Amino acid sequence: MTRLKMGMVGGGIGSFIGDVHRKAASIDGMIDLVCGAFSSSEEKSIASAEALGIPKNRAYGSFEQMIKAEAQLPEAERMDFVAIVTPNHMHFPPAKMALEQGFHVICDKPVTLTLDEAIALEKIVRSTGKVFALTHNYTGYPMVKQAKAMIAKGDLGTIRKINVQYLQGWLATSLEKTGQKQAAWRVDPKKSGIGGALGDIGTHAENLAEYITGLRIEELAADVTAFGEGRILDDDGNVLLRFENGAKGTMTFSQIATGEENNLGIRIYGTKGSVAWYQENPNELVVRWLDKPKQIFTPGGNGGYPEASEYTRIPAGHPEGYLEAFATIYRSFAKEVNQIKAGKSPSTSADFPTIKDGVRGMKFIYAAVESSKNNATWIKI
Amino acid sequence: MTRLKMGMVGGGIGSFIGDVHRKAASIDGMIDLVCGAFSSSEEKSIASAEALGIPKNRAYGSFEQMIKAEAQLPEAERMDFVAIVTPNHMHFPPAKMALEQGFHVICDKPVTLTLDEAIALEKIVRSTGKVFALTHNYTGYPMVKQAKAMIAKGDLGTIRKINVQYLQGWLATSLEKTGQKQAAWRVDPKKSGIGGALGDIGTHAENLAEYITGLRIEELAADVTAFGEGRILDDDGNVLLRFENGAKGTMTFSQIATGEENNLGIRIYGTKGSVAWYQENPNELVVRWLDKPKQIFTPGGNGGYPEASEYTRIPAGHPEGYLEAFATIYRSFAKEVNQIKAGKSPSTSADFPTIKDGVRGMKFIYAAVESSKNNATWIKI
Amino acid sequence: MTRLKMGMVGGGIGSFIGDVHRKAASIDGMIDLVCGAFSSSEEKSIASAEALGIPKNRAYGSFEQMIKAEAQLPEAERMDFVAIVTPNHMHFPPAKMALEQGFHVICDKPVTLTLDEAIALEKIVRSTGKVFALTHNYTGYPMVKQAKAMIAKGDLGTIRKINVQYLQGWLATSLEKTGQKQAAWRVDPKKSGIGGALGDIGTHAENLAEYITGLRIEELAADVTAFGEGRILDDDGNVLLRFENGAKGTMTFSQIATGEENNLGIRIYGTKGSVAWYQENPNELVVRWLDKPKQIFTPGGNGGYPEASEYTRIPAGHPEGYLEAFATIYRSFAKEVNQIKAGKSPSTSADFPTIKDGVRGMKFIYAAVESSKNNATWIKI
Amino acid sequence: MTRLKMGMVGGGIGSFIGDVHRKAASIDGMIDLVCGAFSSSEEKSIASAEALGIPKNRAYGSFEQMIKAEAQLPEAERMDFVAIVTPNHMHFPPAKMALEQGFHVICDKPVTLTLDEAIALEKIVRSTGKVFALTHNYTGYPMVKQAKAMIAKGDLGTIRKINVQYLQGWLATSLEKTGQKQAAWRVDPKKSGIGGALGDIGTHAENLAEYITGLRIEELAADVTAFGEGRILDDDGNVLLRFENGAKGTMTFSQIATGEENNLGIRIYGTKGSVAWYQENPNELVVRWLDKPKQIFTPGGNGGYPEASEYTRIPAGHPEGYLEAFATIYRSFAKEVNQIKAGKSPSTSADFPTIKDGVRGMKFIYAAVESSKNNATWIKI
Repeated sequence: MTRLKMGMVGGGIGSFIGDVHRKAASIDGMIDLVCGAFSSSEEKSIASAEALGIPKNRAYGSFEQMIKAEAQLPEAERMDFVAIVTPNHMHFPPAKMALEQGFHVICDKPVTLTLDEAIALEKIVRSTGKVFALTHNYTGYPMVKQAKAMIAKGDLGTIRKINVQYLQGWLATSLEKTGQKQAAWRVDPKKSGIGGALGDIGTHAENLAEYITGLRIEELAADVTAFGEGRILDDDGNVLLRFENGAKGTMTFSQIATGEENNLGIRIYGTKGSVAWYQENPNELVVRWLDKPKQIFTPGGNGGYPEASEYTRIPAGHPEGYLEAFATIYRSFAKEVNQIKAGKSPSTSADFPTIKDGVRGMKFIYAAVESSKNNATWIKI
Repeated sequence: MTRLKMGMVGGGIGSFIGDVHRKAASIDGMIDLVCGAFSSSEEKSIASAEALGIPKNRAYGSFEQMIKAEAQLPEAERMDFVAIVTPNHMHFPPAKMALEQGFHVICDKPVTLTLDEAIALEKIVRSTGKVFALTHNYTGYPMVKQAKAMIAKGDLGTIRKINVQYLQGWLATSLEKTGQKQAAWRVDPKKSGIGGALGDIGTHAENLAEYITGLRIEELAADVTAFGEGRILDDDGNVLLRFENGAKGTMTFSQIATGEENNLGIRIYGTKGSVAWYQENPNELVVRWLDKPKQIFTPGGNGGYPEASEYTRIPAGHPEGYLEAFATIYRSFAKEVNQIKAGKSPSTSADFPTIKDGVRGMKFIYAAVESSKNNATWIKI
Repeated sequence: MTRLKMGMVGGGIGSFIGDVHRKAASIDGMIDLVCGAFSSSEEKSIASAEALGIPKNRAYGSFEQMIKAEAQLPEAERMDFVAIVTPNHMHFPPAKMALEQGFHVICDKPVTLTLDEAIALEKIVRSTGKVFALTHNYTGYPMVKQAKAMIAKGDLGTIRKINVQYLQGWLATSLEKTGQKQAAWRVDPKKSGIGGALGDIGTHAENLAEYITGLRIEELAADVTAFGEGRILDDDGNVLLRFENGAKGTMTFSQIATGEENNLGIRIYGTKGSVAWYQENPNELVVRWLDKPKQIFTPGGNGGYPEASEYTRIPAGHPEGYLEAFATIYRSFAKEVNQIKAGKSPSTSADFPTIKDGVRGMKFIYAAVESSKNNATWIKI
Repeated sequence: MTRLKMGMVGGGIGSFIGDVHRKAASIDGMIDLVCGAFSSSEEKSIASAEALGIPKNRAYGSFEQMIKAEAQLPEAERMDFVAIVTPNHMHFPPAKMALEQGFHVICDKPVTLTLDEAIALEKIVRSTGKVFALTHNYTGYPMVKQAKAMIAKGDLGTIRKINVQYLQGWLATSLEKTGQKQAAWRVDPKKSGIGGALGDIGTHAENLAEYITGLRIEELAADVTAFGEGRILDDDGNVLLRFENGAKGTMTFSQIATGEENNLGIRIYGTKGSVAWYQENPNELVVRWLDKPKQIFTPGGNGGYPEASEYTRIPAGHPEGYLEAFATIYRSFAKEVNQIKAGKSPSTSADFPTIKDGVRGMKFIYAAVESSKNNATWIKI
């Protein structure tokens, strides 16, 4: 195995999500961080590089510099792909440039600032033939894979009802007014786009529901609200869902759900059985049946499908967490990049979220905002 | 203490809810079952009486017979109140007659077949001055009382978000076609009214949310569905909620949620804290705070309010269940009846669901049905 | 059905366990409380009777008076059985007299003050042929019955390991010095016997383990301690267990386990599977298998055995609690008494704890005390 | 930061614990794997190196070769420390040689095959002044740190009772007879030492109890058993514990507890409060109080101590798992190594398990085996 070389855009020391990406990329021993435009200040970028044990000359003051400079390095040395971990408004420009300069890209979500950018990016991905992964990291959990496999095999019968939730409380107060950086950009439409909590966590909920069930949300009726004083963007929302196959459901998301930490969860009911999964206790999948006792599946545990156990790194009872699920996206992305590097054709069904998921997420945001502006009228996605 | 004497309408041997009412009425030793029109067949009614250890001559073939005959017995002997445990269409007639003949009434929910009946009944209750209780039994759980008290005292701050659910799976198949009696009348509009799951369990969810928060649902947008083959009445629904104070929320209810047993639950988020309660594990109230660790309150446990511990019969750690919560409605009703019997004025705020809750429940059903017919448009309750 | 008539010894108003017995006896509508020696003061006994709605002339100042007086009443009026709910030292005398005067007896645990008394009582029960039940109430939970049935049918294979615990924290401080009555008699050897927590809750743990597994503890090594300042009797203990079939295990019990409410629990491991049950969440039985996913059984839920569902009063998802489990002992006792009254022979295997369980519990206490005095040497029971 | 260079002994591709060590070492970006004697066959060692992306010339056929060869490389290139991930009998020889040749060592547990080896190793560590860490990885969980901090600060008062358990079921059948390598060496005294489950998991339980409470087990009475057919070493055990301060407790451990995955757990009761923690749900610490409601602490959540949050990598609600806890040992070890490399003195209290914990674990094994041979007589550790 040759390890892949990663360049990072954003994620200076102290950044939450940059650190997550670095740890996730490193767990499986397939990727080395070799360079970065960690900050828009070259000085700060160098400081980050030093703290990370990266040579000074591979720290850049902008993504443009980085992409240009790396493109001119010998192949054995230059980065293989770019990880984009900046706020939303800084996703499209580096992604576009990196792809066009021949680098693969892995990017945080939501994919872009606007739907137009997402559509444009989709074309660029297609035309360049580079690998593009979107870190809807929650799809990396083994028990999410187990649920998906059970539904795909028909174990639960026809899906009829889906309740998905993503509840946080960290914006219950006006945190953005205290100078907290994570909060500040998320409530700013210039950096976040037209969705607040909608884009930040609602898209995760949307992606999770569609990923597990394999069903698309056909239309939605959304009632989103900005509870926080002076906020322009939503920090809470409740949504009715109708799926393509006739299934119905609800989504509720919030960043003002006081006391909640990171409570993403989903329940899916079919004609033969149902599943329930909660991210804060991710190593349990609760399966209820029409006529058998309730079961609890665990990663690597009895009765799990290969589709799930393939993503389990350690034996049953040894809990894996958020970083491992995130790492699974990186691992699948790295496998695909290696395949392309080895001159093989792209996988027909890549096992990680792609630009298509990104476009879909943006459409979800736009539909929900439009619905909500029209007093929760139904809008097709 | 003089024990109260109860007459029952419906609830012949083998009936689910009749048996529940009898057990609930007996737990606190304040009530004796003395007579009943347990069935519309006199023969069956007598058989039930015998099985229950009640003298044959107090078994009646109809509620009319019972009310008439009992009214003529000497006061020391005749029943004090009537418990109505029949399907919905048989609530109004016996309730009306009993009240008008001077008997107090405790009645199962939803209060009547139609909204008009409910409004008519409200007038009768008011004009007769008799005590009328509605068995929204879930309000009897100590941890529900604890949540209500915490909100009333302002512990959670201003309420902003409410998610309530009531999930069952027992109608996931066409049980009504097998001759199962419980299922048969519930899917029949002539016996159930215009709401299916909506009336049967949706009203419990509505009542619980309003009871705990003290806030009224101002308007709703409902998407209800009859998934079961050939069903006329809904067996599933998803609802957006807006409360009078600006709080928003969701309700989801279902009787086709495969594998769910009786999963009533509620989460309420305020500016300072939030609570979560689930009926299947009723002796825990999870309280999350803005800046303190999550707490678990238990009946009779540390830190509970008197408003809750008053309803706890046994020390902390000794679980109470559904029957005890149901018994609490009976106990509070019995106290009120005793107070009236002792010549005192009615309580200004009776501690049990009343005809007002009944009317409110019917309005909820009607609003949800109307909304759903209009593609989930907003309807004021 | 003719309802049975109960007389009570002890259990005056305000008593914890007397009230539990009364509620438990009433739930299933098979028993009426008709008389009582509720207190050793006639005045207080009458006050209790009045509060309970019992005629004054059926309130007695002593159990001797009660038994004598009731024995002379006409059969249709006199009590059928005596419920003994006094502290331990007052179990034997009323039990002996009641049995010898022709009354059936249901008695709280541990059965007597001393082992000698227990052995004497066993002879009396045998010679009088009366029904004697001991309220090891935890055996009444449906999920305990389910576990017992699974083991009896061999579902778990050969049992190899048993861990049982009973943890309370209510004596973590010197509560007995505050005048709290429940605490006061429990720490007094004259009223409790030679075991403190050992007798009060250790016997429940011992009984539960033997009841579910059908295996006897052959020998034990106990390390019991009186942590509370000035206490003579143990308030905590840890015990190694060896069962007759070669299974091994531990018991830990405590009344100084700070913060614990009533945490009785048991885990039993066989060669094919294992079960875990906890009294504070009694409506779940966790079953783990060698090669299948973990299952959760619930009362009345999918896959439960008739041996369990027979003891479930309400549909799955409607939690039953401590009082219902206690009521199950009363119900089984009442059925047996009715059978004897109907002139039939006693059941060969009565479905409630008997004097044999009582003797066994006393032997357990004596063995544990002896072991502990000898630095936890092994003692055969 | 300069990244440390790790050499590995054992842990060829396919090995469970080798892979764990590699992932754990990589998460925090402080360590690079540069060489290894992954297997006793040079060929296999090279194959592993290739699969891991390590240059062929840094793959060795024995630890002796590796240590010798690396010692001769220039400082900038040669490994800084050795990670020993072999079965127990292969801990002492490479540890000794590495330390004596100037390398720091991190080693899996139990520390050696015999107590004598452990004592010898302690002397070597002391005389060489090198850093030695033992991977009692469970002490790396943030909630374990929180519990330790709460006890150290006196929040729980005086500790009186400790129940610790480590339950697995993977040896419930004769897995070692199927050729499963993990099972085979663990049941072989030549490779495992005198303890079976005792050494493999009992030492974790012992270490965890002493680590959190800061109290030493003074004496124990152990009843260990080999249930598996033909097994020489124990696969199950039950132990009475007495701690230096008068606290008492139990330990139960098993590898034949059918259906258990990796159920390490501990409950600690003090005079003011108590804690409970379970490894399979590691992101919750349950804290019970004398007079306040039960609390649930979470990593990075409200109310946690800095002593815990320092070990939390991601925000509250983003679960960390086994690998992260393991990584914490590596991180603390790496910090200490860096400190020594920078010419500073060793930390007075290193924040990772050391050779002292290793010796203590061996003494525990020897005491338990001796006690058990003498029918569970008390043995001082």
